[in-house]
Amino acid sequence: MSDPETSSFLDAVQWTQEGLVPVIAQDATSGRVLMMAWMNREALTLTVQEKRAVYWSRSRQKIWRKGEESGHIQNIREIRLDCDNDVLILQIEQVGGIACHTGRESCFYRVLKESTWQIVDPVLKEPG
Amino acid sequence: MSDPETSSFLDAVQWTQEGLVPVIAQDATSGRVLMMAWMNREALTLTVQEKRAVYWSRSRQKIWRKGEESGHIQNIREIRLDCDNDVLILQIEQVGGIACHTGRESCFYRVLKESTWQIVDPVLKEPG
Repeated sequence: MSDPETSSFLDAVQWTQEGLVPVIAQDATSGRVLMMAWMNREALTLTVQEKRAVYWSRSRQKIWRKGEESGHIQNIREIRLDCDNDVLILQIEQVGGIACHTGRESCFYRVLKESTWQIVDPVLKEPG
Repeated sequence: MSDPETSSFLDAVQWTQEGLVPVIAQDATSGRVLMMAWMNREALTLTVQEKRAVYWSRSRQKIWRKGEESGHIQNIREIRLDCDNDVLILQIEQVGGIACHTGRESCFYRVLKESTWQIVDPVLKEPG
């Protein structure tokens, strides 16, 4: 088994100056885009090793195992890289059916209508 | 009719220091994520006005009307904003069924397998 930490797939990624890459998480079953977050090399390495989404929290400046507090883990089905090597997309299985910290399925719950952002999706579980 | 240029929906967006926001384009019919690009205020304003995707090209540093050369226009069905106000997602109708400059349906045509990025999607039309 190869060691993800030393594997060249990490070098293929075009990291930002801060050493990050944007990552889209898509529900593998429904196809719904649930969120976008960021990874650094360590987060991508851990994601591959643990087969669950591990991001880099820009606000907290630390590794963020998605679901570590809420239990809303994202199990990885597939990881893809885009043509410019600077965006990743994960096909995931969203445990609990909730990806957003607001308790909604997806972070994209507001639609632009008549020049305002209108909430169109329900809160499935009040955040604790 | 309100003027998008002066509308507060633009102010709700958390623009980067460079005045940009990442934008995910998803095929409204198939649910496939086709690409991620960037918009500035002008690009989002034009997207809303023209009902087709208009991005900001970071490499060329100019407004980029998607499909202006290839004809692969993206007609807008819906625009959503995420919970942190810093990512947009477009539901689009992809004219020609090709979003990627490589002539593929989606820019995400490489999958991580055995620690390498393997091409799994065909070129539908050789780029001109």
